[in-house]
Amino acid sequence: MTDPRPRAVVLLSGGLDSATTLAIALHRGFVVHALSFRYGQRHAIELDAAQLIAQQSKVTQHVIVDIDLRTFGGSALTADIEVPKRPSLPAMGTGIPVTYVPARNTIFLSFALGWAEVLDAADIFVGVNAVDYSGYPDCRPEFLEAFERVANLGTRAGIEGHRRFRVHAPLITLTKGDIIRQGAALGVDYALTRSCYDPSPTGAACGTCDACLFRLKGFRDAGLVDPAPYVSLSSITYPP
Amino acid sequence: MTDPRPRAVVLLSGGLDSATTLAIALHRGFVVHALSFRYGQRHAIELDAAQLIAQQSKVTQHVIVDIDLRTFGGSALTADIEVPKRPSLPAMGTGIPVTYVPARNTIFLSFALGWAEVLDAADIFVGVNAVDYSGYPDCRPEFLEAFERVANLGTRAGIEGHRRFRVHAPLITLTKGDIIRQGAALGVDYALTRSCYDPSPTGAACGTCDACLFRLKGFRDAGLVDPAPYVSLSSITYPP
Repeated sequence: MTDPRPRAVVLLSGGLDSATTLAIALHRGFVVHALSFRYGQRHAIELDAAQLIAQQSKVTQHVIVDIDLRTFGGSALTADIEVPKRPSLPAMGTGIPVTYVPARNTIFLSFALGWAEVLDAADIFVGVNAVDYSGYPDCRPEFLEAFERVANLGTRAGIEGHRRFRVHAPLITLTKGDIIRQGAALGVDYALTRSCYDPSPTGAACGTCDACLFRLKGFRDAGLVDPAPYVSLSSITYPP
Repeated sequence: MTDPRPRAVVLLSGGLDSATTLAIALHRGFVVHALSFRYGQRHAIELDAAQLIAQQSKVTQHVIVDIDLRTFGGSALTADIEVPKRPSLPAMGTGIPVTYVPARNTIFLSFALGWAEVLDAADIFVGVNAVDYSGYPDCRPEFLEAFERVANLGTRAGIEGHRRFRVHAPLITLTKGDIIRQGAALGVDYALTRSCYDPSPTGAACGTCDACLFRLKGFRDAGLVDPAPYVSLSSITYPP
């Protein structure tokens, strides 16, 4: 018997945002097909996290696609550019960080679209966020709307008109604190999630890259303790 | 000394259309970075063709990116679905063919965009064509315009406003005959190009799939003889 619930493709990085987005998609009644990428990122720890999250969340299917963005370079996450460390959060509006990976979300959404089309799914979930916005152009609502238009023009489903693709970004207007509060209420196990741009070989977060700083601030704002491992708990201060 | 000419990323499949598009980009004065994909297509012959074309055209760089679209399936070009063979061209408007690969052009353009951004290139060339249109939704002008909008919203260059991405589809309003005439005038060696969906192990074209039928009609309309190898020249008739 076919499951009568609608299917959705959920982009799952292994981070806090995508784990929360996955929980939201399940809560909204979708059969979830989770999609992750081995894209030449400097560490595989977030993919291990994605696999654990997918297993624990009981998604219907989890696929990891291999794409090597190192071929092009151009980012601190895929090339030999140093990830910046600092004592506190960067000021908003200070520009696009070196951890920006050229066209990454466009590429990820394109694969999600192809898979959704094969699955006969109309819904794609992505955990992007524009409030605790660290300067990524491909995390803005107008970008997602433009991609939705591409999805509906560039596919069989779009041209035959029997379906309208929707790109859901349920976190887009939430602060990191709101995201964590919502995820905690849905039972997300944040101990499994990894956000750090530059973790230790054992998977402990550095506590000083932008991703760690945003995450720590989010837990502080949510009034919760981050259960993920950090290199030195004593040296971690929750940023103001 | 840096080359003062603008750079362009050209999508190069190894087929007739993309080889012509590459020649047009060079003719318009661009430094060309050619991009091909090993995407799980049933035969590698078109990639061999792409490499020969890139070499002979003296492009600055040719990159082949590995992406495995077989993970998703859903097309006769990447899954175990039979490629249709017929004695003559299908009627226009008979629907999207089984050789349509879900979201393929969206995925290809996304990679081109990421590379263009790293190269500081504003121009992307793609050999899609809407006249001898065999029913692919991602070959329509409105799709390309929508993708251009994604490119300009989802990138560093787009957000910082110092550059506007352009997706060039110089063949979009040409018939296959016009394309071949224009390419021949620019010196394209069509003996190197491969169009067949289902070639023999030696690389000879079948002559009866839709791609072969469109190609043969194009050469007939251009008043030229197709120099590419076919399985049996005696059995090939140029369709009306």
